[in-house]
Amino acid sequence: MQRHIAMKIYLDNAATTPMDPEVVNAMIPVMQNQFGNPSSIHTWGREVKTAIENARKNVAKQLNVAPAEIFFTSGGTEANNTAIFCSVRDLGVKHAITSRIEHHAVLHTLEELEKEGKIKLSFVNLTEKGHVDLIHLEELLKSSKEKTLVSLMHANNELGNLLPLKEVGEICDKYSAIFHSDTVQTMAHYAFDLKTIKVHFITCAAHKFHGPKGVGFLYINNKVKISPFIFGGAQERNMRGGTENVYGIVGLSKALELAYHDLDAHQKHIQELKSYMAEKLKSNIPGIEFNGDTLGNSLYTVLNVAFPPSENSEMLLFNMDIAGIACSGGSACSSGSNAGSHVLKALYGNADRPSIRFSFSKYNTKAEIDIVVEKLKELYAAEISKS
Amino acid sequence: MQRHIAMKIYLDNAATTPMDPEVVNAMIPVMQNQFGNPSSIHTWGREVKTAIENARKNVAKQLNVAPAEIFFTSGGTEANNTAIFCSVRDLGVKHAITSRIEHHAVLHTLEELEKEGKIKLSFVNLTEKGHVDLIHLEELLKSSKEKTLVSLMHANNELGNLLPLKEVGEICDKYSAIFHSDTVQTMAHYAFDLKTIKVHFITCAAHKFHGPKGVGFLYINNKVKISPFIFGGAQERNMRGGTENVYGIVGLSKALELAYHDLDAHQKHIQELKSYMAEKLKSNIPGIEFNGDTLGNSLYTVLNVAFPPSENSEMLLFNMDIAGIACSGGSACSSGSNAGSHVLKALYGNADRPSIRFSFSKYNTKAEIDIVVEKLKELYAAEISKS
Repeated sequence: MQRHIAMKIYLDNAATTPMDPEVVNAMIPVMQNQFGNPSSIHTWGREVKTAIENARKNVAKQLNVAPAEIFFTSGGTEANNTAIFCSVRDLGVKHAITSRIEHHAVLHTLEELEKEGKIKLSFVNLTEKGHVDLIHLEELLKSSKEKTLVSLMHANNELGNLLPLKEVGEICDKYSAIFHSDTVQTMAHYAFDLKTIKVHFITCAAHKFHGPKGVGFLYINNKVKISPFIFGGAQERNMRGGTENVYGIVGLSKALELAYHDLDAHQKHIQELKSYMAEKLKSNIPGIEFNGDTLGNSLYTVLNVAFPPSENSEMLLFNMDIAGIACSGGSACSSGSNAGSHVLKALYGNADRPSIRFSFSKYNTKAEIDIVVEKLKELYAAEISKS
Repeated sequence: MQRHIAMKIYLDNAATTPMDPEVVNAMIPVMQNQFGNPSSIHTWGREVKTAIENARKNVAKQLNVAPAEIFFTSGGTEANNTAIFCSVRDLGVKHAITSRIEHHAVLHTLEELEKEGKIKLSFVNLTEKGHVDLIHLEELLKSSKEKTLVSLMHANNELGNLLPLKEVGEICDKYSAIFHSDTVQTMAHYAFDLKTIKVHFITCAAHKFHGPKGVGFLYINNKVKISPFIFGGAQERNMRGGTENVYGIVGLSKALELAYHDLDAHQKHIQELKSYMAEKLKSNIPGIEFNGDTLGNSLYTVLNVAFPPSENSEMLLFNMDIAGIACSGGSACSSGSNAGSHVLKALYGNADRPSIRFSFSKYNTKAEIDIVVEKLKELYAAEISKS
């Protein structure tokens, strides 16, 4: 059934990453042999419970938090929903501040709460390059009369723009606001020392760093006490009902460990690929530009490129796909809805320039970048010859 | 790290089941090779999307519903939470009728909604054997002035007691009530023709029938329209945000297919084991009784036994575990909380008789039952000689 593809280059690692074979190999024996229900008190259950608790300790150690602050979920979206819904339900939040370029897991959740009349929703201004205007954030907090939740992502999933997490944490703390940050794009790509950052909730999806899909976690700072989002059994110390995705949790832990074990080399390799591609694009395709602050204070895995206006811009992604190259027009989570990028729209209105997000992983090479840039050049040459 | 166990007999299949090797083998290639994000529009994404949609069609076919009525979730608990929370939020439900012996995924969710003041909660009477009193159910519905949700499980996870799904559906329909049934224990163990049953929501957890943990589905009858429980991307036709647990979904589909392919033989084999064990217990341990209607109108996979009063009843499960035999005192989901079985308490108050749930799968044998009964006999003989 699988279509034959002569060449395959995957540059859509912000959408999802291939699993590391070591992660798969850590999961398979659990799938084959360790099948007990972690809530069962017999040997079968206890063995599996131990595997989960070891994973929790491992995750906690990487982030310098207590294991009791890590709660496994079905992924980043559930983790973000939990942080937001439960803050409003349990922590007296009546006002939320966010930005228009958050992931839909945050934006749609906040919009739902606003629709239900449970919160007032404010949007912080963005700078020209798409960074959060921290002065405006402080103004919003200063004038907020009610308990406030600030939800701002650590790195924008389309542009790569980075939020100064520590600084925003200090500002939130000054106004006793709850601070939630969607860290799905940065978890396992940057070191986190959460003892030094005043954040109440951060989130993780394992499939963004060569781990499995369908599993993630929510970090809940032990200073805040919330009730479950999903009600049921006593799993996750009564915080998240449902039999645990054991293999997924084991895979998440392994993937996080691998990422942090080799973080410096990982960062260096990928940053080089990104810079290399940006330079090659600039020198090969006249009129190319870059969205947001993708070349500046930005996540090293993401390069968001604005191509010169073209009559046939929708065909660009399609032609790349035909050529066996994966890249995307925005976030994968939005692709299904065919609505275009709400991030680029918030920043540039309805721009007429086709934009492509290229996102890299440890498995990509400079040779692949050469091929991709060559292909783009070819596609643009064909465009120009037509006009 | 794993403790050496001379003999291993697993009779706790209502808690969770070992994965079928065929299921594991269906998942591994997806984990290794098909890593795209199903929402991505390129080849990598489309391939994986196709795998998910094939799984959905396969599930739908088994239940005789439309693929658009199947929504994949992280498991049975999330599916039950979705049905209940969204019925109240979106369908105008102000009153819920349930029983005191539902799974906590249902009971705690309804209690939360009651606590939040969103619903009135009524409990239907149970017969002496733990069946739902259908006359009382109809009385409750008749006197209900507001839109009502009836949430009753198809088979009780501790006793095995079966609900007449079709009949309850007719009663609910007569009073225009929404009918949700937790079918986690019966899915893939009985045939479902949902064209003939008036139910709005049923649920599934793959790990109850040799599929993977961390994945399940919610069937939503196309007559009811709800909004998401988990907000985010456009996944599951805008009904459930979050990148899909692709391998899990493939595994669920495979496990369901295997179960229904061989349903008659499966039912016959397990029913025989259950009857055999009940007979052997009766003839070997004087004073033994059975909880609920476990020998009557009951799920064939579950046998809930009340042992004669003993001074050392808490030790029974512990000694079984030492002997390498897995069985349970109640549902696994409750074990972690150390609170004892709310099901047995609802039926018998604080009984002084130790109860054990034995639950069987296709992998169990009569030879295993012989060993288990022999062990129980030995433990009781030791008890008697002490007294």
